[in-house]
Amino acid sequence: MKKSIFYHAGCPVCVSAEQDIINLIGTENVEVVHFGENSSRIEEAEKAGIKSVPALVTPNGNVLHINFGASMADVKA
Amino acid sequence: MKKSIFYHAGCPVCVSAEQDIINLIGTENVEVVHFGENSSRIEEAEKAGIKSVPALVTPNGNVLHINFGASMADVKA
Repeated sequence: MKKSIFYHAGCPVCVSAEQDIINLIGTENVEVVHFGENSSRIEEAEKAGIKSVPALVTPNGNVLHINFGASMADVKA
Repeated sequence: MKKSIFYHAGCPVCVSAEQDIINLIGTENVEVVHFGENSSRIEEAEKAGIKSVPALVTPNGNVLHINFGASMADVKA
C-alpha cells in the first residue's frame, strides 16, 4: 500500500494526533513530516490542499484535516 | 484491537471521510454510526467529546475531528 503522509508542526495537538494516527494505521504505513524540521515540504503540502495542521494525505490524495493545531499561515510565520 | 467509532451524519464531507477512514484502518476495525439513522447515539458521542462530524473516537478514547461537515448543534437541529 502506498503510504499516507502526516504533516504537522510539533504543536501539542499535532503530537497527540500523530500518536493516534500511528496507532490506527501503523507506523509503516505513514510518513511523518514535521514542518519545523523540514520547511521545504510546506509547498508540497499546500499543493495537496492542506490548510491547517495536523493533516493526513491519504494514498489516493484526499486531505483529512484532523482537529486543529495551527493554520498554514501560522506554520509559515 | 478494540474498534474505533466513526460518527457521521450523512453529509458529503462525512461520506468521503468515512471511505478514507475505512480504507486506512480497515472496515473490521471501525464501527460506523450514522446519527440520521441512530440519533440515540448522539448523547454518547457528545460525552466522548465530539463537537462536529465527521469524527473518529479512537480505541483509547481520543477524539479526532476530521475535516468539517456539521456541528453537533446542526446534527441535533
